[in-house]
Amino acid sequence: MSIQPSGEHRPTLEDVAALAGVSRATVSRVVNNSPRVSPEAKDSVYSAIRELGYVPNRAARTLVTRRTGAVAVVISEPESKIFDDPRFATVVRAAANRLGELDAAMVLMLVHSPADEARIERFLLGGHVDGALLFTPHRGDPLPTAMAALPIPTVFGGRPWTANGSLHLVDTDNREGGRIGTQHLLDLGRKRVVSVTGPLDEHAAIDRLEGWRLAIGADEAATARLTESGHFAREGGKQAMYRLLERVPDLDGVFAASDLMAAGAIDALTTAGRRVPQDVAVVGFDDQPAVAPHTNPPLTTIAQDASEQVRRMVHRLTRLIAGEDLAGGMEVLPVHLVRRASA
Amino acid sequence: MSIQPSGEHRPTLEDVAALAGVSRATVSRVVNNSPRVSPEAKDSVYSAIRELGYVPNRAARTLVTRRTGAVAVVISEPESKIFDDPRFATVVRAAANRLGELDAAMVLMLVHSPADEARIERFLLGGHVDGALLFTPHRGDPLPTAMAALPIPTVFGGRPWTANGSLHLVDTDNREGGRIGTQHLLDLGRKRVVSVTGPLDEHAAIDRLEGWRLAIGADEAATARLTESGHFAREGGKQAMYRLLERVPDLDGVFAASDLMAAGAIDALTTAGRRVPQDVAVVGFDDQPAVAPHTNPPLTTIAQDASEQVRRMVHRLTRLIAGEDLAGGMEVLPVHLVRRASA
Repeated sequence: MSIQPSGEHRPTLEDVAALAGVSRATVSRVVNNSPRVSPEAKDSVYSAIRELGYVPNRAARTLVTRRTGAVAVVISEPESKIFDDPRFATVVRAAANRLGELDAAMVLMLVHSPADEARIERFLLGGHVDGALLFTPHRGDPLPTAMAALPIPTVFGGRPWTANGSLHLVDTDNREGGRIGTQHLLDLGRKRVVSVTGPLDEHAAIDRLEGWRLAIGADEAATARLTESGHFAREGGKQAMYRLLERVPDLDGVFAASDLMAAGAIDALTTAGRRVPQDVAVVGFDDQPAVAPHTNPPLTTIAQDASEQVRRMVHRLTRLIAGEDLAGGMEVLPVHLVRRASA
Repeated sequence: MSIQPSGEHRPTLEDVAALAGVSRATVSRVVNNSPRVSPEAKDSVYSAIRELGYVPNRAARTLVTRRTGAVAVVISEPESKIFDDPRFATVVRAAANRLGELDAAMVLMLVHSPADEARIERFLLGGHVDGALLFTPHRGDPLPTAMAALPIPTVFGGRPWTANGSLHLVDTDNREGGRIGTQHLLDLGRKRVVSVTGPLDEHAAIDRLEGWRLAIGADEAATARLTESGHFAREGGKQAMYRLLERVPDLDGVFAASDLMAAGAIDALTTAGRRVPQDVAVVGFDDQPAVAPHTNPPLTTIAQDASEQVRRMVHRLTRLIAGEDLAGGMEVLPVHLVRRASA
């Protein structure tokens, strides 16, 4: 029995059952999000819970009740990217925290080769985890399609490449981010706004580029001339910027599809003797706390909330693991402009 | 020697190689499911194996034959350290590569709290992996003792804190590294050699400090005066260096117990107007490719081979998983001095 502030009786599951007029098992099923409860029973249990101020035992509420108490987080990127791009640290930290709150062990699996994919698929099929969060954005990655066929709950972070339409996924509004970042540059009076894109085998990169294209109204030829891929990496952003400076010497604005690439672009611009933002204004994407405030000048960027993305993914996964018959679908998180000195 | 049904010669790997007309290495690769074997060679090895009734040594057949085909890599450090210290990227990359060669899935588990420990212990006990590689160096960490009691094969990287004497572990000769790094500074004629230490709740940090102490012959009072902890982090190394400069203004040599801390120490020395190496010579520890060659000036350091450490850990783990009755013990890897400009 836990200590109560005023010696009052702490409401129990039995109290809830009595007030709701249902069995103890039914209350337990409601609390655990089991699907095998009628909507009526659910309603009366919820009102009894509210009326009594009942706080479910944490253990009872969580994944503990499932088979393994573990959730896989699968990231398909080279290790170099996982350790160099602070976005992955953010994702891993958010997943560790959120899964920890639900008393689930986080099992991190990194995919670097087709052999890894096969091993991970085998492991997931082996029933060693209750579900999986997948970050598998690259075209040609077989895991999304394979996973959709497996009988274990999975939620994707970002849009994977698969024909399967009933996936569960939580994405960022990448196109809108690309659009408002570019529009901000146009609103500042910039006339020649180029873009450093991510790898175009990822929907996130394609969508951000599409946002840029919509804002400046570029046709295919202009898009080819005014954009270069920086592969979502700092050095890549730098090299892309050098190529763009050579091809479009009168450029005066850059929308870089990630903060790391924006930092690399600023490096290149500074080396080339262009002042940021006087000669060239730069907008990034991510608002990474480890990057955006620390560039010189600090980076104007599009904020996306990777922690919130992970929280929503875990929420959806928890419902799937609990057996809820959830329709597949995409949640899209909003983005907004954060103004600093670079634009 | 295992018991043979009728005292016959038991077919060996060499017999298979001879019959199949391939090298011993090729048979080994086939048995280990290596991808670098032609289909033809694989076919002839398989038929030779069948014809001879060859039973591969269990250890040689590796993890593939085991229950889950997965190995846990458990790292107990804050995420910030895992993502900021390139040593962990090296360890994860080496483990991914080596386990991949053995066709085992790598399951990465990060420990940040006592609750994580409990969940990881539960997961490992659940039979979801065939074995575990543990990097749990901190005093007070309950996992080493708990794991030693679990019936699953485990090998430690670095010396954990536990009274259990029959552990399997692969360590680096940290004390010798501290000694030769400091001796190098003394040989250069440096008279006041201080040390920036790691966190002294880790044996690696304690042993490197002990090496420094042996080389300069410091008593307890001198050790307290001439050392500061930099917590194996760059910023920590910088702050420790500032404190040492204040307390020992005539210092002319620094042994920093990691490359990251040495980089921070060089930052602090440069800010304080001391020239490296003219005024103060600096020696690090690790020879991290991402750090040591890139400091200004490039860092003289003690090289340790984290990849080799992981390879040996996996080798020992493979034998344990195969059921070999291996006595617990410690393998210690040698270190050597790498000279660059900082000392």
